[in-house]
Amino acid sequence: MELPECRTLLLRLEQGVLWLTLNRPDARNAMDMDMLAEIGAVFARIAEEPGCVRAVVLRGAGGHFCAGGDLKGMLAGGVKLPATGTDDPIMAMNRAFGAMLRQVAQAPPVVIAVCDGAVMGGGFGLACVSDVAFAHVDARFGLPETTRGLPPAQIAPFVVERIGLTQARRLCLTGVTIRGGDALRLGLVHEVFEDEDALQTRLRDTLTQVRQCAPQANALTKQILMNAARLEIDAVLDDAARKFAASVRGPEAPEGIAAFMQRRAPSWSQP
Amino acid sequence: MELPECRTLLLRLEQGVLWLTLNRPDARNAMDMDMLAEIGAVFARIAEEPGCVRAVVLRGAGGHFCAGGDLKGMLAGGVKLPATGTDDPIMAMNRAFGAMLRQVAQAPPVVIAVCDGAVMGGGFGLACVSDVAFAHVDARFGLPETTRGLPPAQIAPFVVERIGLTQARRLCLTGVTIRGGDALRLGLVHEVFEDEDALQTRLRDTLTQVRQCAPQANALTKQILMNAARLEIDAVLDDAARKFAASVRGPEAPEGIAAFMQRRAPSWSQP
Amino acid sequence: MELPECRTLLLRLEQGVLWLTLNRPDARNAMDMDMLAEIGAVFARIAEEPGCVRAVVLRGAGGHFCAGGDLKGMLAGGVKLPATGTDDPIMAMNRAFGAMLRQVAQAPPVVIAVCDGAVMGGGFGLACVSDVAFAHVDARFGLPETTRGLPPAQIAPFVVERIGLTQARRLCLTGVTIRGGDALRLGLVHEVFEDEDALQTRLRDTLTQVRQCAPQANALTKQILMNAARLEIDAVLDDAARKFAASVRGPEAPEGIAAFMQRRAPSWSQP
Repeated sequence: MELPECRTLLLRLEQGVLWLTLNRPDARNAMDMDMLAEIGAVFARIAEEPGCVRAVVLRGAGGHFCAGGDLKGMLAGGVKLPATGTDDPIMAMNRAFGAMLRQVAQAPPVVIAVCDGAVMGGGFGLACVSDVAFAHVDARFGLPETTRGLPPAQIAPFVVERIGLTQARRLCLTGVTIRGGDALRLGLVHEVFEDEDALQTRLRDTLTQVRQCAPQANALTKQILMNAARLEIDAVLDDAARKFAASVRGPEAPEGIAAFMQRRAPSWSQP
Repeated sequence: MELPECRTLLLRLEQGVLWLTLNRPDARNAMDMDMLAEIGAVFARIAEEPGCVRAVVLRGAGGHFCAGGDLKGMLAGGVKLPATGTDDPIMAMNRAFGAMLRQVAQAPPVVIAVCDGAVMGGGFGLACVSDVAFAHVDARFGLPETTRGLPPAQIAPFVVERIGLTQARRLCLTGVTIRGGDALRLGLVHEVFEDEDALQTRLRDTLTQVRQCAPQANALTKQILMNAARLEIDAVLDDAARKFAASVRGPEAPEGIAAFMQRRAPSWSQP
Repeated sequence: MELPECRTLLLRLEQGVLWLTLNRPDARNAMDMDMLAEIGAVFARIAEEPGCVRAVVLRGAGGHFCAGGDLKGMLAGGVKLPATGTDDPIMAMNRAFGAMLRQVAQAPPVVIAVCDGAVMGGGFGLACVSDVAFAHVDARFGLPETTRGLPPAQIAPFVVERIGLTQARRLCLTGVTIRGGDALRLGLVHEVFEDEDALQTRLRDTLTQVRQCAPQANALTKQILMNAARLEIDAVLDDAARKFAASVRGPEAPEGIAAFMQRRAPSWSQP
């Protein structure tokens, strides 16, 4: 699979795993418009070739996940009100960030976020749309937007989805910073590690587990999960039954069920 | 109250508590179409006579709660595509499973699940629709469907409702198995026990607590809770105010308030 | 700012913090219709002058937060069915309680609840609509309504919003009482304290943190969070992008971003 050329991201595709590293270490990987566009392009590419990428491992270069949006860069074009009847560039720029988060949230592969250092603002939002999140105990998570006079506008809805309204309101309205242990307790991440070796071991195990799961069945399941969080229950169940019937007749289930009966590994479990 | 004849379930109604045991121990209580139909028939019967069954205690025979759907049996009829314009039997069979889960979720009595051994796939889903769930520390919970090439189609929405999207996506997309302690931490179950004696003691206490609660008020409350998770807030509050006013004038509230003022037990608290 | 005269509440506004104390200690601060109306009037007044009140600290006089609704007083007018075509006073009275809870939930300032003693029924509901909740370890939380033959009608939806359906159903349907430690574990409160001194120290720190956050940005963020819990995701993100663009051009963001770049405190951080 051909991946887009990227200036702000490091990409390595190996045995169905895309290692995606945010790579603006001098800015603690703060997200500028280029990075936003490149993440979008990569995930659009992934969605075009179903099953090719089974998992994406998302992390930041240089000891930080992502320090947030690069406000200076984003507002460099000025903040004047647009002429009546024309689009508002500030609003469009902000909205694009939410669109990118939705795109990652709905990506067919399993997205694994590895959080260390600063996981702030937009970086916090990116962690919120992963399927599995690991963190170092001393990683720092926070939503300091309102201390700068801005709402965490595109991020807040994904924070509510991730950790619920009760925890989201405290974090968003006080700007407090929390560490890995609290991130685990609030359900922001799934596991916390004292050191990188332990994290790497667990990451390898998790990738092995993901390989046991059939790619298309996983992609369908992810759609059902997203629907479940947003749509009316009967509509979700009707759609899910259609997806189930299609899977039973698709290529994966016959192999998966046969492998299970014969107590052997299914074909897709090999890297 | 007359209960349906069942081949796959053991039923015992005693002092308002229905002890319902999934009884296919040789298959670790895997759910076949008969069991699905029988659970549906029992809960339909319960709903017909409000107040008669105050609590249902749901467990599995032979040391396992339920190992999931009996795929072999369910697919025995073949998986050919139906002729155009006719119903798809695979889809209908799958959808029936979700309908049964909704029926249990909305049952008027308090449903208490006692989880031990395998609580997998459909069994996991059944645990998710209980009002109170107990587990043995070494019970094993998991959603291995996608390792067989199938989505946990009818189950996933109830998993999201039970433990939220964040935990649901990890469990559904990695097929990982967790134990009782983690099930407690994720909010899948409410209490975990080292041994059956401690569990039985707590179960008796919980049934005593449930008996303090007026049957109709509990049934109305359960409807409000289900609405709250699914409908717009003002509609939920309007409907709840109507239910409150009906309760004030109904037979239970006058007795309940009088008993509270007189510091005596209400009439419904006796078994 | 002029605050309403109150019979059931103690009010003190100091440096942008409104100290609001429920003050019917002889009735463990049980909520009667006067208290309901007075809370409503205070929060209506707050919303009229944005930015004036930055935080509300809500607690109860005499060692209890709030023991619930004052049923005796509320039903003193009798419970006869109204004539056809006229409003039902019981339903209206009950519905007013939910309207008050929504009003507090959506209040522009940061609402901090300090829970000790009895936090029962309506008091539990009030804790559920705070942005930050502190509790003493020995505070007692519970929803005993159905033991009196009544559904916790206006409260249950806010309990589901606060701690999720899974925990809400157990608490509402068994009437069980939990302590501060469990309230923390279930996510009902954010922090628990062994003694009042530790709580006061942490409260002061939290108010300092809230002062770092721009008042209007915080108010907009709270709207986004409430929308996120209730509306469709794209509508939420569109609206949030509009709010973001307005903030960028409003008075707060230029000051907030300048202060951040110059590593100084923003103007609004002083009491």
